[in-house]
Amino acid sequence: MVQAYILIQTEVGKASTVADVISGIPGVLQAEDVTGPYDVIVRAEAETVNDLGRLVVAKVQGVAGITRTLTCPIVHL
Amino acid sequence: MVQAYILIQTEVGKASTVADVISGIPGVLQAEDVTGPYDVIVRAEAETVNDLGRLVVAKVQGVAGITRTLTCPIVHL
Amino acid sequence: MVQAYILIQTEVGKASTVADVISGIPGVLQAEDVTGPYDVIVRAEAETVNDLGRLVVAKVQGVAGITRTLTCPIVHL
Amino acid sequence: MVQAYILIQTEVGKASTVADVISGIPGVLQAEDVTGPYDVIVRAEAETVNDLGRLVVAKVQGVAGITRTLTCPIVHL
Amino acid sequence: MVQAYILIQTEVGKASTVADVISGIPGVLQAEDVTGPYDVIVRAEAETVNDLGRLVVAKVQGVAGITRTLTCPIVHL
Amino acid sequence: MVQAYILIQTEVGKASTVADVISGIPGVLQAEDVTGPYDVIVRAEAETVNDLGRLVVAKVQGVAGITRTLTCPIVHL
Amino acid sequence: MVQAYILIQTEVGKASTVADVISGIPGVLQAEDVTGPYDVIVRAEAETVNDLGRLVVAKVQGVAGITRTLTCPIVHL
Amino acid sequence: MVQAYILIQTEVGKASTVADVISGIPGVLQAEDVTGPYDVIVRAEAETVNDLGRLVVAKVQGVAGITRTLTCPIVHL
Repeated sequence: MVQAYILIQTEVGKASTVADVISGIPGVLQAEDVTGPYDVIVRAEAETVNDLGRLVVAKVQGVAGITRTLTCPIVHL
Repeated sequence: MVQAYILIQTEVGKASTVADVISGIPGVLQAEDVTGPYDVIVRAEAETVNDLGRLVVAKVQGVAGITRTLTCPIVHL
Repeated sequence: MVQAYILIQTEVGKASTVADVISGIPGVLQAEDVTGPYDVIVRAEAETVNDLGRLVVAKVQGVAGITRTLTCPIVHL
Repeated sequence: MVQAYILIQTEVGKASTVADVISGIPGVLQAEDVTGPYDVIVRAEAETVNDLGRLVVAKVQGVAGITRTLTCPIVHL
Repeated sequence: MVQAYILIQTEVGKASTVADVISGIPGVLQAEDVTGPYDVIVRAEAETVNDLGRLVVAKVQGVAGITRTLTCPIVHL
Repeated sequence: MVQAYILIQTEVGKASTVADVISGIPGVLQAEDVTGPYDVIVRAEAETVNDLGRLVVAKVQGVAGITRTLTCPIVHL
Repeated sequence: MVQAYILIQTEVGKASTVADVISGIPGVLQAEDVTGPYDVIVRAEAETVNDLGRLVVAKVQGVAGITRTLTCPIVHL
Repeated sequence: MVQAYILIQTEVGKASTVADVISGIPGVLQAEDVTGPYDVIVRAEAETVNDLGRLVVAKVQGVAGITRTLTCPIVHL
């Protein structure tokens, strides 16, 4: 399994809705609104890095109101 | 009370109008045009961090012409 | 209570040690290594925004090997 | 007169001291600690843009613990 | 007189046209296409910082295809 | 000959299509999807820096779904 | 196997040496000097994301003169 | 010939000295202090992109007090 944080920027005024919708996507463990350069921080997991990439592109980025996502895979060093 | 600076980027050509409109929002103490990576710098206050987040998302980001806001809560260390 | 994500950049080669040390700081709920523009992502909580600021400046930033921290308070909109 | 916001990044753990010291510099109207990508936000004024540049380089940047300053002159459009 | 560099990002595919149009704006001394994080670098001058701000917002940012401008006033230290 | 990496940001959900289309542009040696602050990394070559600039502006940036490109010419020091 | 681009910033004047040394690290496929916001772009591969993280932290970041690395895993969508 | 802008960040308090020293480097056409995210903006020229890269790494980056340079080659589209 690969877990990752996904740092999300939304269109102005859309942060709350985006977090709500993302929360319901399979593979998403948590989605919260934050202040600062990002608007929503998500924790997600998938089988492989490729699956994670597909989750982000096909599911998360499909949510209306998202302008940028930044995926940060968690690594165990 | 929580106070914060809100650093705002606007659509090109909209800085002046954005600052004017934001000045009239309750909770906004000051809104000024600047040059550099940001176009408008706002000082605002609210009861709690959550209220501040709502002020930004519901009121400030509702102003036409804003493309990004960056909220920097003031802290007393 | 205020919770926040703290996105941390470390000196090269220090990510793993930094995450380990931060994990032991009171108020820190989780600290993980990630790849991308940040090296460690921390979840922490404190009573107020000011307490959170003090936790970051006095405790987290005191960990050797950290070069930048970016605090993103979680808001409930 | 030219006024400006100066957005400051400090070495880890130095934000509070930096804000205190800057507050005492002639031409500085206000200096506060913030969370987010910047650590201290200052408001300052000078006679001209050149004087403002000198204030920042000669006085503000001379404060120990500052790593970057970003000067944003206030403009009246 | 105040001179400044204006670092410009354009919509994809618009860099060349933007530089051409900006070259014809009074107060603009030079406008060139570059590669890297910016697409066009302009040198301009105005009587005061306020005039410079107005030149950028009213004239330069009015050129179709510009998405962000970053004004860097030249200072004589 | 000048070679360069082109770091590309795409509209959300478009990374895969963008990489596919760019792969077919003459002068493009490789185009791959990545995670992180960029969505697609391209390697391209042209006769001169000017030709490279034209390749990027006229061909690569013409691909639907691209929002920003950052050209990094390879240099032999 | 996981492949990734590693975008590297070096201390001033160290780009060439850094690229040379990194080229010799097992798992590194290519290391080239570039101009722009990054100084060296590396292509590397490892068995898993965790191995990739260890390669970057333990080997690449151990090269003298590196100040920041940004790992961008290649994904097949 | 290849011309380029070089956007330079300096250690705090060093902008003025850095601009003075760079002005004397062969191939440098102009070096000026600016306010904003960069401290000095240089215009330089060289025979080829490789020569330009060498000029930046071997000569410009050798000036004491520089922390980052960002080379933006001028292109004629």
